[in-house]
Amino acid sequence: MSDLASLINDLGRRARAAARALAMLDRARKDAALHAMADELTASAETILTANREDVAAGRAAGVSSALLDRLTLTPERLEKMAAGLRQVATLPDPVGEVLREWTAPGGVRLAKVRVPLGVIGFIYEARPNVTADAAALCLKSGNAVILRGGSEAFRSNTAVAAALGRGLVRAGLPADAVQLVPSTDREAVRLLCAAGQYLDLLIPRGGRGLIETVVSHARVPVIKHFDGICAVYVDVAADLAMAESIIVNAKCQRPGVCNAAETLLVHRAVAEKFLPAAGRALLERGVELRAEDKAFALLAPLGSPKVVHAAPEDFRTEFLELVLAVRVVDSLDEAITHIAENGSHHSDAIVTADAAAAERFLREVDSATVYWNASTRFTDGAEFGFGAEVGISTDKIHARGPMGLEELTSYKYIGRGTGHIRT
Amino acid sequence: MSDLASLINDLGRRARAAARALAMLDRARKDAALHAMADELTASAETILTANREDVAAGRAAGVSSALLDRLTLTPERLEKMAAGLRQVATLPDPVGEVLREWTAPGGVRLAKVRVPLGVIGFIYEARPNVTADAAALCLKSGNAVILRGGSEAFRSNTAVAAALGRGLVRAGLPADAVQLVPSTDREAVRLLCAAGQYLDLLIPRGGRGLIETVVSHARVPVIKHFDGICAVYVDVAADLAMAESIIVNAKCQRPGVCNAAETLLVHRAVAEKFLPAAGRALLERGVELRAEDKAFALLAPLGSPKVVHAAPEDFRTEFLELVLAVRVVDSLDEAITHIAENGSHHSDAIVTADAAAAERFLREVDSATVYWNASTRFTDGAEFGFGAEVGISTDKIHARGPMGLEELTSYKYIGRGTGHIRT
Repeated sequence: MSDLASLINDLGRRARAAARALAMLDRARKDAALHAMADELTASAETILTANREDVAAGRAAGVSSALLDRLTLTPERLEKMAAGLRQVATLPDPVGEVLREWTAPGGVRLAKVRVPLGVIGFIYEARPNVTADAAALCLKSGNAVILRGGSEAFRSNTAVAAALGRGLVRAGLPADAVQLVPSTDREAVRLLCAAGQYLDLLIPRGGRGLIETVVSHARVPVIKHFDGICAVYVDVAADLAMAESIIVNAKCQRPGVCNAAETLLVHRAVAEKFLPAAGRALLERGVELRAEDKAFALLAPLGSPKVVHAAPEDFRTEFLELVLAVRVVDSLDEAITHIAENGSHHSDAIVTADAAAAERFLREVDSATVYWNASTRFTDGAEFGFGAEVGISTDKIHARGPMGLEELTSYKYIGRGTGHIRT
Repeated sequence: MSDLASLINDLGRRARAAARALAMLDRARKDAALHAMADELTASAETILTANREDVAAGRAAGVSSALLDRLTLTPERLEKMAAGLRQVATLPDPVGEVLREWTAPGGVRLAKVRVPLGVIGFIYEARPNVTADAAALCLKSGNAVILRGGSEAFRSNTAVAAALGRGLVRAGLPADAVQLVPSTDREAVRLLCAAGQYLDLLIPRGGRGLIETVVSHARVPVIKHFDGICAVYVDVAADLAMAESIIVNAKCQRPGVCNAAETLLVHRAVAEKFLPAAGRALLERGVELRAEDKAFALLAPLGSPKVVHAAPEDFRTEFLELVLAVRVVDSLDEAITHIAENGSHHSDAIVTADAAAAERFLREVDSATVYWNASTRFTDGAEFGFGAEVGISTDKIHARGPMGLEELTSYKYIGRGTGHIRT
């Protein structure tokens, strides 16, 4: 076994032992640990910020994009927000032990379906160091041990953050192995972690296509993918056009770099002539580049902006994550639904319409984690949903779909209580 | 692309199209189809039984075990039971569209969490032809298209059953592609099906270790394993020994060939001297071979039966599926829990005790899909749980654990209804 393989093996073995202990903890002990972890983050601010400055300098030297540098950068305020996030998770109810259902089976055994932790979670993510603390907090509160593997750009920051979290765990009398960071930037470690089936119950990859594909192809345990958001807003024939403009502007521009931002605008042909020039102007004013198919282009070109360009088919299958929007005129609600089925990523899609029947068809037939009627796609988020926190947005259909909070990090078991019941 | 690859590809494409149609069907149309499928099974009885006789003859010629031949054999009664199973699924509530939760998000959007089908399920199983009808019925009722791949021993039977089901679907006006059987016994087809990620939402393998390992190693989509049942009954110091004997005899002997049968008996040392000779006699009378570790062997040997033998360590990690039981004396509840954690398969385990505190510790700390107090492990079953039917018993923790009925074959989506809500 290589050194790296034996390292991953060791992380797995320790995590498995920690998971058994964590599963038995009551809420008070977990919440106390979360507070101790938050305190240690604050106490270690200087160390963490120094490590982060080294990451940012190395990233700048390596020529990473300014968007990535911004996500990578920690400030005293961002660090305080990270600590506040840990304390916020402490206020959330403990999902473990919740009785989901109780009934008497036909044979007389009294059954209960009870929430339990999953066990050991492998969490593989990119760039933002705050994810290290968020994921650790949610896994701990849900009774799971976690092995974290962050992006190499944030390695020094993540190491400092994880060390502080570990001190908090120990101070609270919990096993430090509850939260472990893979102490290597070697890409081979990702492959080894994915294949560590005997120690892991679940892998959660959160990042770009390359990362997700690596994890899926090497995984020997279940994976819940946090993938692309190719989200569409469809403006129906019966839309309130002022509302539609406000929604697409919000969905595209309020925070373009996230997965629930809109990448596609579909407009019914009957309202396109009226809607597109006005909405197009509003979007152009906010710096959005409009990649329009022919019919949409004909309506947007008269705005005279160099930011109105012809769309290629792949523009409708691209997560831009910046101020770019693919625009298409459709003949019908059916065409909009089909477009989304064939081009979208099943994340979040919206219809704007005053026609309740059209809305209900869209809500029913569009197979996405979240579908909206007269609301922005930007609401797909654990905090906005009222989950308190999230590890991310699942684009899978198995186990957890959409925002993944504490409940989505649990499994369940059945408990059967009898008085000598045997099967006949 | 090989012929086989293009065949699997074609099955996937057709299933995906059928799944879209199935997701929109109301309960009445699905139930009508289930009745039509049951009628067609009955109408095709002679064809199906003839095909089955050919399978049984080929199996006998190939020297397959008598247990397997029994599971393979269809009779007019078994066929009628298969048809009755389809009609039974028609009586169950439709899970699709069920509103699991409704609330107003902090930002004012009204959210609903609604059950939806998974899409396309690949179901890979061994031997029993009735699984073909059961799986088809449950997938259809839960709005999913299914691609079935049965064992090669039952290929002729499964083909005849699937053809009858298909006629029922068509008669009811549903797409025949809702239920497809892989028309090949080539093992390569399993590998290709597992890798057909673009068409499948879930793979369910149900069978022996070899089958499960093949599926897991080739899968590029989520897998819910239906694996071993290495189930233990632990007789505690405070057990009612008559109850304990009745439970272990039931758990071992009532139907030894199934996954929820007990394979291991653990006995607290303080009651072993009294319990083991009596229980051992009862088990030996039913033809059970007792593989005992040293302390248990010392107590069982005086019974003077050649069926009392020394256990090897691997006997405690073996799913015998026949009248063989591994027996061990333990020093404490803790030792029993640790034994199960290290040797069991996390399927179903039971404690027999009058001590509520000991029972609650066992129920909490044993990490199995189902844990019992004073009841036989044999109750882990969809029908016994009152689920009406099941595709099997999941030994996974992700998505579905324990008996998988209709609800476990669904996912969910979030529906957000606003009045122009945008995120601030």
